[in-house]
Amino acid sequence: MTSPVLPSQGRVRPLGLAQVSITGGFWGSRQAVNATATLAHCESWMERLGWLANFDRVAEGTTAPDRPGWSFSDSEVYKLLEALSWEWGRTGDPEAEAAIKRLTARVARAQDPDGYLNTCFGHGEQQPRYSDLEMGHELYNTGHLLQAAVARLRTYGEDELVRVARQAADHVCRTFGPDGVPGICGHPEIEVGLAELGRALGEERYVEQARLFLDRRGHGTLRDIPLGRAYFQDDIPIREADVWRGHAVRALYLTAAAVDVAVERGDDELLRAVERQWERSVARRTYITGGMGSRHQDEGFGEDWELPPDRAYCETCAGVASIMVSWRLHLATGDVRYTDLIERTLYNVIATSPSPDGRAFFYANPLHQRSPGRPADAAEVSPRAEAGVRAAWFDVSCCPTNVARTLAGLQGYLATADDDGLQIHQYAASTIRAELPDGRRAAVKVETDYPESGTVRVRILDDGLWTLALRVPAWAAGATLADEGRARAVEPGMATVRRDFRAGEVITLELPMEPRFTWPDPRIDAVRGCVAVERGPEVLCAESHDLPHPGGLDALAIDPLSGPRAEPGGARVRGRLAAPPDRPWAYSRAATAASAADVEWIDVPLRPYHSWAHRGPSSMRIWLPIDKE
Amino acid sequence: MTSPVLPSQGRVRPLGLAQVSITGGFWGSRQAVNATATLAHCESWMERLGWLANFDRVAEGTTAPDRPGWSFSDSEVYKLLEALSWEWGRTGDPEAEAAIKRLTARVARAQDPDGYLNTCFGHGEQQPRYSDLEMGHELYNTGHLLQAAVARLRTYGEDELVRVARQAADHVCRTFGPDGVPGICGHPEIEVGLAELGRALGEERYVEQARLFLDRRGHGTLRDIPLGRAYFQDDIPIREADVWRGHAVRALYLTAAAVDVAVERGDDELLRAVERQWERSVARRTYITGGMGSRHQDEGFGEDWELPPDRAYCETCAGVASIMVSWRLHLATGDVRYTDLIERTLYNVIATSPSPDGRAFFYANPLHQRSPGRPADAAEVSPRAEAGVRAAWFDVSCCPTNVARTLAGLQGYLATADDDGLQIHQYAASTIRAELPDGRRAAVKVETDYPESGTVRVRILDDGLWTLALRVPAWAAGATLADEGRARAVEPGMATVRRDFRAGEVITLELPMEPRFTWPDPRIDAVRGCVAVERGPEVLCAESHDLPHPGGLDALAIDPLSGPRAEPGGARVRGRLAAPPDRPWAYSRAATAASAADVEWIDVPLRPYHSWAHRGPSSMRIWLPIDKE
Repeated sequence: MTSPVLPSQGRVRPLGLAQVSITGGFWGSRQAVNATATLAHCESWMERLGWLANFDRVAEGTTAPDRPGWSFSDSEVYKLLEALSWEWGRTGDPEAEAAIKRLTARVARAQDPDGYLNTCFGHGEQQPRYSDLEMGHELYNTGHLLQAAVARLRTYGEDELVRVARQAADHVCRTFGPDGVPGICGHPEIEVGLAELGRALGEERYVEQARLFLDRRGHGTLRDIPLGRAYFQDDIPIREADVWRGHAVRALYLTAAAVDVAVERGDDELLRAVERQWERSVARRTYITGGMGSRHQDEGFGEDWELPPDRAYCETCAGVASIMVSWRLHLATGDVRYTDLIERTLYNVIATSPSPDGRAFFYANPLHQRSPGRPADAAEVSPRAEAGVRAAWFDVSCCPTNVARTLAGLQGYLATADDDGLQIHQYAASTIRAELPDGRRAAVKVETDYPESGTVRVRILDDGLWTLALRVPAWAAGATLADEGRARAVEPGMATVRRDFRAGEVITLELPMEPRFTWPDPRIDAVRGCVAVERGPEVLCAESHDLPHPGGLDALAIDPLSGPRAEPGGARVRGRLAAPPDRPWAYSRAATAASAADVEWIDVPLRPYHSWAHRGPSSMRIWLPIDKE
Repeated sequence: MTSPVLPSQGRVRPLGLAQVSITGGFWGSRQAVNATATLAHCESWMERLGWLANFDRVAEGTTAPDRPGWSFSDSEVYKLLEALSWEWGRTGDPEAEAAIKRLTARVARAQDPDGYLNTCFGHGEQQPRYSDLEMGHELYNTGHLLQAAVARLRTYGEDELVRVARQAADHVCRTFGPDGVPGICGHPEIEVGLAELGRALGEERYVEQARLFLDRRGHGTLRDIPLGRAYFQDDIPIREADVWRGHAVRALYLTAAAVDVAVERGDDELLRAVERQWERSVARRTYITGGMGSRHQDEGFGEDWELPPDRAYCETCAGVASIMVSWRLHLATGDVRYTDLIERTLYNVIATSPSPDGRAFFYANPLHQRSPGRPADAAEVSPRAEAGVRAAWFDVSCCPTNVARTLAGLQGYLATADDDGLQIHQYAASTIRAELPDGRRAAVKVETDYPESGTVRVRILDDGLWTLALRVPAWAAGATLADEGRARAVEPGMATVRRDFRAGEVITLELPMEPRFTWPDPRIDAVRGCVAVERGPEVLCAESHDLPHPGGLDALAIDPLSGPRAEPGGARVRGRLAAPPDRPWAYSRAATAASAADVEWIDVPLRPYHSWAHRGPSSMRIWLPIDKE
């Protein structure tokens, strides 16, 4: 099965790349850009910066104490290999296959005879192996190697990459096993790599090693650092924690592995711990975009309700990792809240990062940009995660390859099957074919231009008796389902049709796409007195491009009584531009108001947040202050 | 003259430690605690951590590549020497004198024959001198040595410390002079040290070297770093900048030096540039407390209007540095806006940092604490600037010694003189004696328990014709001035009385101390829909200690129609505790409201912000959401 995650048990089973294909539309065009531009873009940057040559130098014995790239640059090569593998599985593209062979050969030559594989440690005058577990990222890199091998194994089969990964995994088990070094990696990732490679190869040892790493964590196993042990989730054992904290990507990769281990071991205590953490973190530490991470300082979660829009970090990689977690939880439980969050994150984090040409990316995804960024130079490495514009590459460039691997395997997240039929979770123009355990075949073609419109037509491709279940998103109050002309209202959750289908029949889900106001919990201090506008799964935003004055976003207050009106692809709200007078001190006895003469009523166009700064650097805001007059 | 700053020209002249003494009250008790507890506390921590022994190791030639403390730990010894010097100047305390001699001897032994003095670079296997100008802090350390020598020179006279500083300054001028290394220090401070030592010793060369460092900066003189060159103000020349940006303490130390150079050189262009930066930064990048620094990531200023209360950094040292800048600008211009900001910063940043016993300190001073900190261990070094509780010492421990030197010399900021009389800026129980240029003597005794009450009685001590000017703070609308029983209304600014005074006469300033609501500019997104309460110069806050439920601060909304009522030392507002229901997602179609049954009206006591967490760890907020029902 060509799927990124294949649990041995669970409420529903994923459908892989062979069963689902995206044929066009919103995600189809993004997959195409990823295939034709992003994959080569990533390889060429890693060649240019010497991150690939790092492998050659290890192979040739020409390492030096210093080398290009951070200690985790190897992982970018592995994430690209994973992306290429899913891409080849999806399309059989010979260029992808050639790139896999090319990269694998260079990686393989750098592996030590005992399976250790790292270009930053352990050779020549480099620091010794595993001498900096807190920050050295050695096991983190290996985890990504294992994930790449899983993709290769499930799309192609055993090959050099899989052989290399197996040796690396064996080396890790020998070194860090029950009788080995009782350490863990400062950046979780090895756990999720080991668990899935264990599943893919039927190697119980790997899953057990992942469990061992999980349970070792949280006891002050790593040295303390100025940011504190919460930074790498070594403050509290995962079974005891109530909420995600510290570095968001670390927290989420760790949690994904915890679900894998819980499912493989039938460990309900662990699964419930993770669900509890998901619940509080999603309820109190997650942005309306699905973005996670409120602090730049440590790329981390804030406290409950600490969700500043301007300093939101919402790292693209945390979006990827959040989807990894929610997908695993959904497979385990079948709960629609997880696939709801995946949809939100896909449209408002994953789709936001890459530029339309697939050659520039957002790393941080703030919900409010005060000053437009500077136009980016496509030939320059951005030294910073924050910029206000998409950058071609970053000094820490985890996000481009993470977007690439997610988009290349995206169809793996669209649908699942159980013993009686299909569940469709994400709506894209696609075909979906599943064989049910008793030999029945459930096959459909999904025809939709969602999210442009809310009409999703599911055309039956084969005759048969089975259950079709369609996710009605939590936001979709008023949705209807029409089965051969008979429409009925359906509630958020799963809308099901069980009957003897005939090929050619069409079931139509109508999701209400009128733009809507969305109000924040009053405990989110940073957006008090503001409202957002959403349309379908998309969060909308106002951009300075669409306002008459350059500083307009600071002067805007919208009328909450006249609701948002639909516009093609977005919405329009009524607003009031009223710049308060400039004064020498920002705090005064009376609330500041603009004089009536300075007030200007305008219509403010709102566009999908994922498209912000497509028209050049802009200031932007999702949360719109409401006019109290 | 025993004053921290003695410009050769300016609109008014400072009065030093010999002319002003604080005799009790709010600041008198803090000076006493500083003298009896904090000074020894600082010395004992630096001994315990080996920061003092670093000097011995250089003297003995036993340095190692690594040593205890950060590269700037030498500066803490110098700031303590500065504090001890002001303390001795203030009281003649023999223990202070013994400590000065003890510390000076250890410092002096570590000086190289050519004047270089640093315990982290340049000896044995340490990195070479000036090999890391960006982050090495060598010149920064030297700058603090020079400031310590200024304090010693002005309170005692020439001695070993002054001799050491002079040699160090000469070394800097030789090394970095017009024909020397064209570098600057990543952390400004050498400039302000050189300028004042130049004034104190009459050494023009030192002032000129300060000017050279200032004008070299802002041209990309230092290497770029991930935080960007704005971090150390090397992005824009100081004459061209419009606003403060980057690391707040760096920006402010640099600006203090710029005022010194502008005044000594009669450089009005430079002075105007600094005033322009002060204006915009104070109007748009400063907290109601006077605190500066909106970001933890770089301890830096944010953009205009980026003033989150929960993640406010407001480093104590930035408060010290802000006072240094405003005091210099006031001496140059006589403008009361600068002494207004000094008062605000003294009561709400400087007074907030130390604990009542003078042995624990806040480093960051946020305006909103969501979760109470953990009780601090007085024997432990805090690894972090943020904690929610005062810590005995920090890994980066710049704040305790900065508070110590500021409190020890605080009377130097109370009053000034011009050719016709006295100006009193800060109200404390004190005596102030100035000799005017023509031999007239202006001497007063200030009797007040300000800010407990707003009554300030100024008793004339000598007969004479001169002008008494009293600062009426910007917040003090409705103030009155009574001269021998005849009261009149006085406007914010300077209220003056010019006449032939007789000893024993009393002029009484009455400042209105009723608590008042203060509203933020609507562009400060993070406090929209909130109001603060101030009383006199003090910002007040609500603390969880005073609320009936532990999580009460998250559920509080106050009634803006019933104004704050006076309470001894604080105020009381009417508020509504209404916890919104917990829901799985924080964003919804309708604004969330608590059900009527869950609403509880209470009286909320507010206390001075500077006293928060005195009763143990608490959650706290200055900005109070207003009830819209």
